[in-house]
Amino acid sequence: MEANDNNKIFSRRFYLLPGECNSEQEMPLWLLANRIIEIATLHANSLGIGYKRLSRDNRAWVLSRMAIEMKRYPKVGEYYSLSTWIESFNRHFSERNIEIADEQGNPIGYARTIWSVIDSTERTSCDISALGTMADSISEKECPIERQSRIKDIKRLKEYRYTFRYSDIDFNRHVNTLRYICVILNMFPLEFYDSHFIGRFEITFMKETYIDTEVSVWLDDSDPKDCKAEITDGTTPLCRARLIFTTR
Amino acid sequence: MEANDNNKIFSRRFYLLPGECNSEQEMPLWLLANRIIEIATLHANSLGIGYKRLSRDNRAWVLSRMAIEMKRYPKVGEYYSLSTWIESFNRHFSERNIEIADEQGNPIGYARTIWSVIDSTERTSCDISALGTMADSISEKECPIERQSRIKDIKRLKEYRYTFRYSDIDFNRHVNTLRYICVILNMFPLEFYDSHFIGRFEITFMKETYIDTEVSVWLDDSDPKDCKAEITDGTTPLCRARLIFTTR
Repeated sequence: MEANDNNKIFSRRFYLLPGECNSEQEMPLWLLANRIIEIATLHANSLGIGYKRLSRDNRAWVLSRMAIEMKRYPKVGEYYSLSTWIESFNRHFSERNIEIADEQGNPIGYARTIWSVIDSTERTSCDISALGTMADSISEKECPIERQSRIKDIKRLKEYRYTFRYSDIDFNRHVNTLRYICVILNMFPLEFYDSHFIGRFEITFMKETYIDTEVSVWLDDSDPKDCKAEITDGTTPLCRARLIFTTR
Repeated sequence: MEANDNNKIFSRRFYLLPGECNSEQEMPLWLLANRIIEIATLHANSLGIGYKRLSRDNRAWVLSRMAIEMKRYPKVGEYYSLSTWIESFNRHFSERNIEIADEQGNPIGYARTIWSVIDSTERTSCDISALGTMADSISEKECPIERQSRIKDIKRLKEYRYTFRYSDIDFNRHVNTLRYICVILNMFPLEFYDSHFIGRFEITFMKETYIDTEVSVWLDDSDPKDCKAEITDGTTPLCRARLIFTTR
């Protein structure tokens, strides 16, 4: 763990264990999303605006959007690192970026994340600019990937029905962010991942859902290299994603 | 990361992130199992008998059985540590134990694990005693929980059908150990976990299975505090588990 540039950039090194890998013996997207949330949490802790501080006022950080772009994924037995910094914030949202680097420190990918702060009791939005240390924590480091697009006009070509259960639920009693990602990735066959990897992934979380909810996972693969997905509870959209595949 | 007693006991400290917690804001059993596999892997690496060394000869460690006993689980925002050591080994199996400790280093639980080494191509068992450093690595540290019982006479009282998909598959293209644990835990309602925690958990892995396999998850809750579970593919048992619950 290290922090530099007056704690504006926060980094951590990890080791990719065999037991964590996907069927291509690489870092799965859900683990990368997990690491992104992990390093964001640890950086916020180190700035004094983390989980423990906010929960004293019944507040909590909520991940609203995430865009990930990878040239390649870490392989089994490789060390890799994540570095994170805050790009900007306003009353409603904070933009936090992440660089993923290989063993030698060369960037292999980037992520852009958008966070809000909510009152956990009222489920209402709180003013981020009121968090003292935010303004002093902006970093000028560049994030060379595009901002997230608006995911719209999804054709409902394929449907999979899934019911969220105990192991899908997080500490707020909602469906865990990572499990949304898993059920979307499960719309593609194993063979497709053998010949392609996810070059860019975007996800927008729209509404929280609960245990025992049966959802529809919709896939629009009319362009097989640029797919869109949506999870709905009846007519209510819960999240939308876009998956741009790169041939291996 | 630290090793002592001539590298016979290997320890690592962790922080329980909010995003990793279950609905009771504690460490989920599947994350504990993940950490147990992680520390076993790292210790084996440090002894020169880890994944990379074995894979050069097409060999791999396989977890065969695991018994976990917890007085309590780490809570959100808590630091905790795992320490592991080898208790014994013979040609076929290695007994590796784990102590789980709280922030102050006080033990809050233990695990006993049984590992074998297989030839990844032939899927046959290899001679563990041929691994050079094993004999020098036995620790006398005590593990005060009972060895695993033989899980038998399971009454098939409740059934849940589940089909394993892409995100359930590991780097050997089999169903991931942790996903077996999740589907078994999903047999109990959320409310039950609010009033009980898993005081002791035992699992025996019997046969590997593959993507798109539809399995039956059977629950025997004739004693609601001492349940048994079995996952079967048709008539073939894949794994068996026992869950002893403690009232909160």
